[in-house]
Amino acid sequence: MADSQSRYEERRIDTGRITLNVRIGGSGPLMLFFHGITANSAVFGPLMDAFSDRFTTVAVDQRGHGRSDKPETGYEAIDYADDIAALIKTLDMGPAILVGHSLGSRNSVTAAQRHPELVRSVVAIDFTPYIEDEVFASLSARVNAGDQAFADTEAVVAYLANRYPNIPAPAIRIRAESGYAPAADGLRPLASASAMAQTAEGLRADLVPAYRDVTRPVLIMRGADSKLVSAAALEKTHELRPDLPIVVVPGADHYVNETNPDVTINAIRNFIDG
Amino acid sequence: MADSQSRYEERRIDTGRITLNVRIGGSGPLMLFFHGITANSAVFGPLMDAFSDRFTTVAVDQRGHGRSDKPETGYEAIDYADDIAALIKTLDMGPAILVGHSLGSRNSVTAAQRHPELVRSVVAIDFTPYIEDEVFASLSARVNAGDQAFADTEAVVAYLANRYPNIPAPAIRIRAESGYAPAADGLRPLASASAMAQTAEGLRADLVPAYRDVTRPVLIMRGADSKLVSAAALEKTHELRPDLPIVVVPGADHYVNETNPDVTINAIRNFIDG
Repeated sequence: MADSQSRYEERRIDTGRITLNVRIGGSGPLMLFFHGITANSAVFGPLMDAFSDRFTTVAVDQRGHGRSDKPETGYEAIDYADDIAALIKTLDMGPAILVGHSLGSRNSVTAAQRHPELVRSVVAIDFTPYIEDEVFASLSARVNAGDQAFADTEAVVAYLANRYPNIPAPAIRIRAESGYAPAADGLRPLASASAMAQTAEGLRADLVPAYRDVTRPVLIMRGADSKLVSAAALEKTHELRPDLPIVVVPGADHYVNETNPDVTINAIRNFIDG
Repeated sequence: MADSQSRYEERRIDTGRITLNVRIGGSGPLMLFFHGITANSAVFGPLMDAFSDRFTTVAVDQRGHGRSDKPETGYEAIDYADDIAALIKTLDMGPAILVGHSLGSRNSVTAAQRHPELVRSVVAIDFTPYIEDEVFASLSARVNAGDQAFADTEAVVAYLANRYPNIPAPAIRIRAESGYAPAADGLRPLASASAMAQTAEGLRADLVPAYRDVTRPVLIMRGADSKLVSAAALEKTHELRPDLPIVVVPGADHYVNETNPDVTINAIRNFIDG
């Protein structure tokens, strides 16, 4: 495959509480990547390419996703966040920089708040407190509609390109090739449908306490055209924590690191090298 | 004196190109502070208090100001910026974190652009490209009106409290007690009137190239109620460099680090610990 993620070794890591599938590259201090709902670790290939010269980069299939364990229940913020803590302890390389998109952003900030000794800082991409109810309802509908069988990878590509109209074709292909596996009726998502439904519901929980109380540095990133984090939600988050730096990426929608990897990479550099 | 700046040793440092008066504290990597026009190193006492446990903190009287040398000419951005480079080389402790307010912000970003090997990062407080002509005209008028004699320190306090209505009384007193000295006709500013006029004029020079080309991380801070950096100037700067993190401090005017030291300190921590 020509995908950049194919350069990274896949490994299953038993953290004691769950076994997680990860992609690993580079060397140096630990930088972990956590994807959004229904995605998997492969989406972070371009960011791993940028940081593997200085960091041990580990992109994680979070619980219920990709080739990681998929328990029947346990898809709240603390379940995901405590997986992050257990992974850092198992790797024995903390404190780690956490880069999270959407669900992964929520999980990373929650982990930093609950386990500050294991986290150096968080890059929190396009997920904040104060996201509106109707936004969550729309997200749940999109997530649940993904539970279907596809004739082949090209059918998956067509579906994803329609679902994510601003994500460039190479990044769509990474999602299509990494996130689906043969089943009796065709290609089906690796992500568990039940886990996705529970996870989407869990995203509605109040995130204000985690943002209010987190003591580690958090870079708040938002796509200027995001339909998930509204300008109003960002403004309220800024009022809650005016000391946290903000980067709004012009021309980006919710999928900031896939639509605008270059600005994302530069913004992360400017934060971690500050 | 009860002022926090009185805890820091004053020292004159010959950089080879100019002798600068500084206040020094702490130990560890180098963090330098550069004040705004007509001010001096004493204004950074509260920030030095916050960072001297981890950094060698050095607040600088910039050329023409305080007890530093005051050449007849040479008050452009590169004159100030090359002083910063010479100071870091003389101290032999680079690369340094530069924290600059207003004039000091302009000088710090210019130094980082011209001498990236000497600078780790910049905290650029309330000075950006795209400041409007009428804002500079108003600033020049205020600066030039400061060239007067005062009967005593209380008269200076009254004058400064009127000029800076949002700066708290203790910070006004620091300015009054540190920035004036007896002359034939009363207390006069330590800052050279001719140097101030030239410096105010020099602030109008185009700052776009420095911001466009700087490769070191810059945290852009603005007071939400700043009359110097308008919301429009900040937005244009963001369009120029969307990868640079931004902190807008609620309730702060131009004098962000004096009106809101706590948020300023936390924002700096979140940037340098990222």
